[in-house]
Amino acid sequence: MVARRDVDVTDLINRARHADPRAVARLISFVESNSPVLREVAAGLAGVPAQAHVVGLTGSPGVGKSTLTNALVTALRARGDRVGVLAVDPSSPYSGGALLGDRIRMGEHSEDEHVFIRSMASRGQLGGLAAAVPQALRVLDVAGCDVILVETVGVGQAEIEIASLADTTLLVLAPGLGDGIQAAKAGVVEIADVYVVNKADRGGAEQVTRDLRQVQSLSAGRHEGWKASILKTTAVSGEGIQELIGALAEHRQWLEDSGELGVRRRRRAATEIEAIALGAVRERFATLAGPAALDDAAGRVVDGETDPYVAAEALIASL
Amino acid sequence: MVARRDVDVTDLINRARHADPRAVARLISFVESNSPVLREVAAGLAGVPAQAHVVGLTGSPGVGKSTLTNALVTALRARGDRVGVLAVDPSSPYSGGALLGDRIRMGEHSEDEHVFIRSMASRGQLGGLAAAVPQALRVLDVAGCDVILVETVGVGQAEIEIASLADTTLLVLAPGLGDGIQAAKAGVVEIADVYVVNKADRGGAEQVTRDLRQVQSLSAGRHEGWKASILKTTAVSGEGIQELIGALAEHRQWLEDSGELGVRRRRRAATEIEAIALGAVRERFATLAGPAALDDAAGRVVDGETDPYVAAEALIASL
Repeated sequence: MVARRDVDVTDLINRARHADPRAVARLISFVESNSPVLREVAAGLAGVPAQAHVVGLTGSPGVGKSTLTNALVTALRARGDRVGVLAVDPSSPYSGGALLGDRIRMGEHSEDEHVFIRSMASRGQLGGLAAAVPQALRVLDVAGCDVILVETVGVGQAEIEIASLADTTLLVLAPGLGDGIQAAKAGVVEIADVYVVNKADRGGAEQVTRDLRQVQSLSAGRHEGWKASILKTTAVSGEGIQELIGALAEHRQWLEDSGELGVRRRRRAATEIEAIALGAVRERFATLAGPAALDDAAGRVVDGETDPYVAAEALIASL
Repeated sequence: MVARRDVDVTDLINRARHADPRAVARLISFVESNSPVLREVAAGLAGVPAQAHVVGLTGSPGVGKSTLTNALVTALRARGDRVGVLAVDPSSPYSGGALLGDRIRMGEHSEDEHVFIRSMASRGQLGGLAAAVPQALRVLDVAGCDVILVETVGVGQAEIEIASLADTTLLVLAPGLGDGIQAAKAGVVEIADVYVVNKADRGGAEQVTRDLRQVQSLSAGRHEGWKASILKTTAVSGEGIQELIGALAEHRQWLEDSGELGVRRRRRAATEIEAIALGAVRERFATLAGPAALDDAAGRVVDGETDPYVAAEALIASL
């Protein structure tokens, strides 16, 4: 552990502004963990205007999200963009190491100084990933990223929440996984701005597209002014990636024109603040002493002396 | 909607005590939703001693959890037990309807007056499923259930949390899904008290067992005094179910002898109280007005006038 005094946050942020990859990595480590300099980093990043287009990717394991992310990075680099990649695993309590395999597949970009790749897991920051991800986005914004790809694993509620932190949410599907229906069930269809049917060279891609159109016709969609487009890609060969880049740019333009960009960013900030506040309240609950303390109250609930609602009220009152 | 005045909660609880299935169903509906009588129900259930053995089942889709649950119910009924089944889908924001397929498969027990079957999803109760499930367990306890099976879908963090609310947590695996490794990654191996390798008639069951033993030897386990047993079942034919019933009874005995039962129930109550309290705090955040209000604060964070930590502090201070 580095003592607080040894970290010059202002200097780190300045170096991140000049796209120093080590400064970027260090700042993200601070926002990911409960670092003593976390507050100072947050204050330092507060004035940074959000320029980057934040794109969330979600979808079941096996649809090829990592390969698609890789292909998107290649295409974005070809047009001269600086790119950030956050690979988020909300279901893992462990550090980013679990995603090592994915990172190895990103190998071709790992030496590129205009690409920042980072894995994040819920490691105990106050407020969890709902707080850590927006801060990490600010760090990547400071470093001048034009596009930030936030890739989640799985299609659970947590993954959907992370993906919804983005400006544009991309749902990736593939033939043969039956996940059109799964996605509909998980409510993910409603939050997607762009659908991608990847592995389109395989049989069944047309069926997935049709299923998706049907689900789409029955659902309200995320915003009435935007009809989510359905694209087909074969990420391994690069097929359809230019069209996807075009669809993302089109959505970004719509976000700006419609004023929805500001709405989403404000909602993202509200979620972030709430997550931090609830995390802080939870910490206070854990450290309370006396009869309202959580463990004492739990004992009384088990013994039938009180009910959990009365106990919860006492807990809040003792804050 | 039924108005508050029209519900006689005391009468409902009395009828549930006599195992009236309609009263049980109605009470669970109250604890699942933000019903106006929720508090009254909670107070009425507070004095009920927890008698039932609560068994949580978790595992990936496709391992045969529903079939296994069905087989367990058959075996428990054969020895004269009254049984409750809660099928919980934490990743679904929708009502239990999503699990209709599973319930249809439970058809053979749906006419049995000593079996209570119920699907639950996160439907907006204060504190979510972490609060609703323990209350539903109390309802089933009042109705005289000897064993309550809590079945979750998936192996995400949310599913693990629900399964951990049980006295005994059972992790179900099957050959050919590669989920030994997946389970290890999700941290589920550490919380299981009993492992079941289902579909043991298929090739690969031995391999799953070996993988599991290896993962087990590397992990700390949930409690040092208990080494999780690994059983093989073929739920469709009933093979291995008696042994599983035996393993569950053995674990229950160990829980009592070691004092761990009380520890786990206290922890469950603490989680429940905390979830209710955090839900209430969150509701207050949402209704706050003035400069500390969430939406105003979010606007200032987006504009770079403040950082989310300062905004979160102001939010807490205004409670």
